[in-house]
Amino acid sequence: MKIGILGGGQLARMMALAGHPLGFDFVFVDPSEDACARDLGKHCISDWSGDHLLEELHGSDRVTFDFENVPADSLALLNKQFMVRPSPKALEVSQDRWQEKTLFESLGLPVAPFFAVDTRPDLLEGLSRIGYPALLKTRRLGYDGKGQYLIRDREDLEPAWQALGGVPLILEGFVKFSHECALTAVRDAKGDVRFYSLTHTLHQQGILRFALSPSPANTAWQADAETMVRSVLEALDYIGALTVELFVTQEGLIINEMAPRVHNSAHWTIEGAVCSQFENHLRALADLPLGSTQSLGTSLMINFIGQMPSVDMLQMEGLHWHDYGKAPRAGRKVGHATWVRSDLNAMVTKLKTLTPFLDDAQVQGLGELIKAAG
Amino acid sequence: MKIGILGGGQLARMMALAGHPLGFDFVFVDPSEDACARDLGKHCISDWSGDHLLEELHGSDRVTFDFENVPADSLALLNKQFMVRPSPKALEVSQDRWQEKTLFESLGLPVAPFFAVDTRPDLLEGLSRIGYPALLKTRRLGYDGKGQYLIRDREDLEPAWQALGGVPLILEGFVKFSHECALTAVRDAKGDVRFYSLTHTLHQQGILRFALSPSPANTAWQADAETMVRSVLEALDYIGALTVELFVTQEGLIINEMAPRVHNSAHWTIEGAVCSQFENHLRALADLPLGSTQSLGTSLMINFIGQMPSVDMLQMEGLHWHDYGKAPRAGRKVGHATWVRSDLNAMVTKLKTLTPFLDDAQVQGLGELIKAAG
Repeated sequence: MKIGILGGGQLARMMALAGHPLGFDFVFVDPSEDACARDLGKHCISDWSGDHLLEELHGSDRVTFDFENVPADSLALLNKQFMVRPSPKALEVSQDRWQEKTLFESLGLPVAPFFAVDTRPDLLEGLSRIGYPALLKTRRLGYDGKGQYLIRDREDLEPAWQALGGVPLILEGFVKFSHECALTAVRDAKGDVRFYSLTHTLHQQGILRFALSPSPANTAWQADAETMVRSVLEALDYIGALTVELFVTQEGLIINEMAPRVHNSAHWTIEGAVCSQFENHLRALADLPLGSTQSLGTSLMINFIGQMPSVDMLQMEGLHWHDYGKAPRAGRKVGHATWVRSDLNAMVTKLKTLTPFLDDAQVQGLGELIKAAG
Repeated sequence: MKIGILGGGQLARMMALAGHPLGFDFVFVDPSEDACARDLGKHCISDWSGDHLLEELHGSDRVTFDFENVPADSLALLNKQFMVRPSPKALEVSQDRWQEKTLFESLGLPVAPFFAVDTRPDLLEGLSRIGYPALLKTRRLGYDGKGQYLIRDREDLEPAWQALGGVPLILEGFVKFSHECALTAVRDAKGDVRFYSLTHTLHQQGILRFALSPSPANTAWQADAETMVRSVLEALDYIGALTVELFVTQEGLIINEMAPRVHNSAHWTIEGAVCSQFENHLRALADLPLGSTQSLGTSLMINFIGQMPSVDMLQMEGLHWHDYGKAPRAGRKVGHATWVRSDLNAMVTKLKTLTPFLDDAQVQGLGELIKAAG
């Protein structure tokens, strides 16, 4: 079976590493000459629009994508000739924060108040309904905290409009959360659904830094999150891996956004679960039986941003290394490590052995994570 | 870091799958156009002798091999320009059954009686010393049971000589073993050594069919085998993964042969141990800290010979699939599966759920394996 992937970044790379043992071949479409998946299949150096895509992906039995900003018309074109999974509809919804929130609301899921903002009067109307503080965001093309502006009070209104106005926007109520979490699920064409354990996530500067799973917080949230994610999967007749990000508040979980693809918050599943999100995404695409999502202990995933740390970190018992083979660059996700221990207690008691390999920001973040994990 | 591999078969393929997450690039030298590692790095379609190897492997930080029959002079040539690991000396010893047995004997390890046979009088002399039954084998280039002849009595002498005479041979005493096992270890340049759990192996027609680890047999054998393997590793100042195959007899373990590379009997380590033999081989080559060899339960590895079974087998909870992407052909190793359970008991109680996916020979072999495992 040949899998075509729009995008050739680390997610495509890890899909290919999971897919070769299934006997799959890969073709990646990515405009970057040094796309980090390039050595794991055929690499077409190309952008993601135009009829040439049909030729580049020729012979693909399935087509998927490793990022959300694939042009919608490209996917519609490809869907006429290939089996595109997840569906263009799921991607379209996730590309537009307003459509996404509207879907969640229509399913009766707990969601922050939101209001579509196209004009300055819309913004005033939205603020009068939602109140301060509120987040003004672009409806499309935001990621890793980009395209967002926090409006704390009336004085922030003008700079927020100057920063973002002119494209379709959404105003969202600011959720006071104790921390964030994410649930990754996989669904196949027959409707079989499997959930990974709820993952406690920690972001810094809008970028995911740490993921801890199973989340040691209130175990009732696993069931709550599963109910929410199942309704989204079924509403979209979804096929593949889906991650939903949630806020944990005193009143329970608030659904924030979804990613219709494999996701950074579930990288720990490579070594921390029986069958990884990457393999299960491919199994769902290819109509193979889904693999077990059971956790193999407690996993901590640490993202490496900008550059890889010293390989001395490999001394850590049970630590797994993922160097994406990218050149160092500020703010760039260049790799991650996953540390798997038998349970949270076994991890916490050895936590100090990890800190010598981390920088100050990481040590601080890890401290916050463990404190919030309580 | 760039790793050059002589050979591009499934062992090279699985090394590359383990090595990409370490940030390594690969170049494979293999004469076969459809060498199954070809999609996981640069593939040089070439044989393994001649000065052109220097050019093909240009830029490699380390050179290793995925099979034992690399010409010794090629490795000597490469060792002048590259860091070849394991050493050409280790390969040379393993390529010649007589040198190998002589090494084992010199280290005081329990070994079957053996005698070098170059001429018919040598064979008669050997048989008079060793007695019947005895195995006549080529000293070089044997694998998967090829190049062997069992001499049960005087009548077999002539056909054995007709079949094998003319090349350097070795006559070995026939060991009455209850079953076979294998121990895989890894050693780095600083002398750090890690052992995987002892693996119970079952061959049919000279080809490995099943591997079960940890071997449920006498647990004292783990320590005995470790002592033997450590002495071999140290005698050769060995760097990388090494597998030693052993006979289990009523008198204890008898050392049979070694493979100076990653080995089929340890494929279960991909999912059944914290850090696989493939990753640890690369870590040792690259002077990275060795990873934990701890088992994650009990693993059963099933080789697929000739063709892959139905993918329906993926329904099995905890079963991991390895399709090497090879065309089906009688007698060819085309893939394997590893089934990981919490312990042997959990595996045995569910064994019947596995048999519908196996053919008659496999069901029979599995029955023998479990019976011998006692």
